[in-house]
Amino acid sequence: MQVVILCGGSGTRLWPISRTLFPKQFVKLFQDESLFQKTVKRNHKIADSFCVVINQEQYFMGLDQLDELKLSNRSTFILEPIGRNTAPAIAMAAMAADPEEILLIVPSDHLIEKQDAYEAAVLKAQELAGQNRLVTFGIKPHHPETGYGYIEANGIEVKSFKEKPDRATAESYLKSGNYYWNSGMFCFKARVYLEELKKFEPEIYEQSLKTFNQARREQGIRLQMDDMKAIRSESIDYAVMEKSQLVNVVPADIGWSDLGSFDSLYDTLPKDNDGNTLSDNTIHLGSKNNLVLTQNRLVSTIDVEDLVIVDTSDAIVIAKKGSTQKVKELVAEVKKRNSEMTNVHTTAHRPWGTYTILEENPGYKVKQITVRPGAKLSLQYHHHRSEHWIVVSGVATVTNGDSTFDLKQNESTYIPKEAKHRLENKQNEELVLIEAQVGGYLGEDDIVRLQDDYKRN
Amino acid sequence: MQVVILCGGSGTRLWPISRTLFPKQFVKLFQDESLFQKTVKRNHKIADSFCVVINQEQYFMGLDQLDELKLSNRSTFILEPIGRNTAPAIAMAAMAADPEEILLIVPSDHLIEKQDAYEAAVLKAQELAGQNRLVTFGIKPHHPETGYGYIEANGIEVKSFKEKPDRATAESYLKSGNYYWNSGMFCFKARVYLEELKKFEPEIYEQSLKTFNQARREQGIRLQMDDMKAIRSESIDYAVMEKSQLVNVVPADIGWSDLGSFDSLYDTLPKDNDGNTLSDNTIHLGSKNNLVLTQNRLVSTIDVEDLVIVDTSDAIVIAKKGSTQKVKELVAEVKKRNSEMTNVHTTAHRPWGTYTILEENPGYKVKQITVRPGAKLSLQYHHHRSEHWIVVSGVATVTNGDSTFDLKQNESTYIPKEAKHRLENKQNEELVLIEAQVGGYLGEDDIVRLQDDYKRN
Repeated sequence: MQVVILCGGSGTRLWPISRTLFPKQFVKLFQDESLFQKTVKRNHKIADSFCVVINQEQYFMGLDQLDELKLSNRSTFILEPIGRNTAPAIAMAAMAADPEEILLIVPSDHLIEKQDAYEAAVLKAQELAGQNRLVTFGIKPHHPETGYGYIEANGIEVKSFKEKPDRATAESYLKSGNYYWNSGMFCFKARVYLEELKKFEPEIYEQSLKTFNQARREQGIRLQMDDMKAIRSESIDYAVMEKSQLVNVVPADIGWSDLGSFDSLYDTLPKDNDGNTLSDNTIHLGSKNNLVLTQNRLVSTIDVEDLVIVDTSDAIVIAKKGSTQKVKELVAEVKKRNSEMTNVHTTAHRPWGTYTILEENPGYKVKQITVRPGAKLSLQYHHHRSEHWIVVSGVATVTNGDSTFDLKQNESTYIPKEAKHRLENKQNEELVLIEAQVGGYLGEDDIVRLQDDYKRN
Repeated sequence: MQVVILCGGSGTRLWPISRTLFPKQFVKLFQDESLFQKTVKRNHKIADSFCVVINQEQYFMGLDQLDELKLSNRSTFILEPIGRNTAPAIAMAAMAADPEEILLIVPSDHLIEKQDAYEAAVLKAQELAGQNRLVTFGIKPHHPETGYGYIEANGIEVKSFKEKPDRATAESYLKSGNYYWNSGMFCFKARVYLEELKKFEPEIYEQSLKTFNQARREQGIRLQMDDMKAIRSESIDYAVMEKSQLVNVVPADIGWSDLGSFDSLYDTLPKDNDGNTLSDNTIHLGSKNNLVLTQNRLVSTIDVEDLVIVDTSDAIVIAKKGSTQKVKELVAEVKKRNSEMTNVHTTAHRPWGTYTILEENPGYKVKQITVRPGAKLSLQYHHHRSEHWIVVSGVATVTNGDSTFDLKQNESTYIPKEAKHRLENKQNEELVLIEAQVGGYLGEDDIVRLQDDYKRN
């Protein structure tokens, strides 16, 4: 069985810890593990291989996180330039697989707390998939949630799919006992899904096939923008599941949460005796039942209750618990003021490592740059800025104009504007350097790439 | 008349915006003005000169803030190595003045909103002081405050001084109408105060006189540590006002606040229609009556009410309004974990300018350093660290080993460990540089000063 992990979510519902270019599945929320990594670990015993469908911008982030688990060699990546919802994404994963292979489709940003129950449900689904069924997983609801679609079931038979209900309807669903949350997890043979898609949505099928065939095979299956744009965006539920006669549902009570808001995140995190989430960098005086997420800074509370406090290096949110669905509205407001703040953190992830903006002022910018072992930045130059590099840890192999040389800890070099240059880490340990940029214009777009290992030129 | 400004408060009640080495009177809380500056401006029309009694660590901060108002030339500084409460501090200010000069004693960290009423009260006090009276100002109470001492008055006659009352007593004081808050402001001739101090507290008088006479006269009157230690710590109220027969009180309804907590600060700040304090860096959704203090980061709230949210670069406090007196308890807790965080901000003020820690990690530290026009750091060297300097704004005059040279914007130099070096700004504009320190030990105490304009060697 191959596990297909869908990483398409843009995830600003947990802003400011998640950002457009750093969605929630990659945030290390749980003891230095991300939801994406938890998803991989949850499935790595039951999967023969992984197929990760991911936005091309997040490819190296996903690859890194797989590397940390030492599982990147069992994985294929399908890289999307833009998202077209789940029906096409799953179609292309199915096209990349053996037609008779069973695929287990899982979102990358959900939490499942009961591993044994999960594995049992998957086993059941696998069995049905082996009989050429399209299987969906129905989560046993524990409250009258109005934010999810429901599946009306009779045993493993699906009676109907239901849109997000109003409160009263949700309560009646909960009471009746045969309604389940539509979890977004599926299991079927690649061939069966593609046949059904072709039957109900031939255009989506054909355009997905064309896109898949035209993809560049290098560092994963790289789908092309023009092809992707031509695909109609559609969910697997609308395109196939609600129309096919082959559908079954596996009811599952597996400790599932989609972590769609800080409220649901609070429910899943470990807490102290006063109901405050645990953190070394927090002091609570007379405070109860608070979610506090902080990185480096000390967050102290005095006599507050039921708050969500989320701290990042450039933005902080303080919300009443129960109101965190309004984060969406907040993000829209922030975007009006400073759209960068909804897209990226002050630490940005790049294929070769990371950079963190330490200080930014008219005329200069200071960055801390880390380069992973074996990685190199593009050969590049800038029209408007000079750069000073100081190695504070590791060894840099530097191209500066026509010469290439090693720069060790406590050594520095100066890159004049217009000079072509390159930074590389040939060592086994991480390279850290401080870069001071000086110039009249300091935008990231002032870069001319002459050669790039990551095909960005 | 000379205005004596007492700057002794160590002020951690507004932590984390105030710190031991950056007390609240110097924090620019009001449209880029500090309470100290507001105190100076409030008095500069009615004063012939200023005497500032200040901890020696804060001397340059006070001088800077006077410079910004272009009033440093009318000021004398008395520099205390340690505080000994108000009786000795005022004694030494009186010794520095002409004996017949009238002194108006004012704390540096109070807010007074009714300037006309204030000036009228001062005029009345001045008239009484001219008749050899010791005048205290009684603030008309507007709520039954239990945190202040009270003065029982009959017109300008003082009937008694009262300790901080319990709630019921405070309510009876408020009702009676002839009790006033003891504001800590006084007015009298220098001679009259010294005579009364000598009469009631001869030891304090004698030791203060000795300390004053032994002080070094350079950059203000610099009191010596051994002399100061020998003075008994005492307030002017206990030492003189509660004992003297010469005391009068001037009742004053002047919009006074001591800003002793974030709650009282909230009351004095401008607010929007929802009762939230105004700030460019804040977004409020459905939130009311919140105090938000932030510098560079965006603070957003959702559906929260009556909170105090105070953000600084290394610490943030979220408190329920009405509970902010517990900040004291919080500071004690923080001190146990990281005492530096109660003493200083990530930006530290030095006689020559400021430095801000941008990044700190084992093996390296990155600072942004600003040097004011005309200022120079000490000639120094370090045993354990090398330094890389990059000028990003202005021109540095650098001594590095045996040579001295100018370093312009976008130029850099490397200071090896053990090399003596010096940084100076000979220009009329501020110098800004980025310093990357590399070494096994990076403590501020690894510094050997060979020559220092500020007498710190």
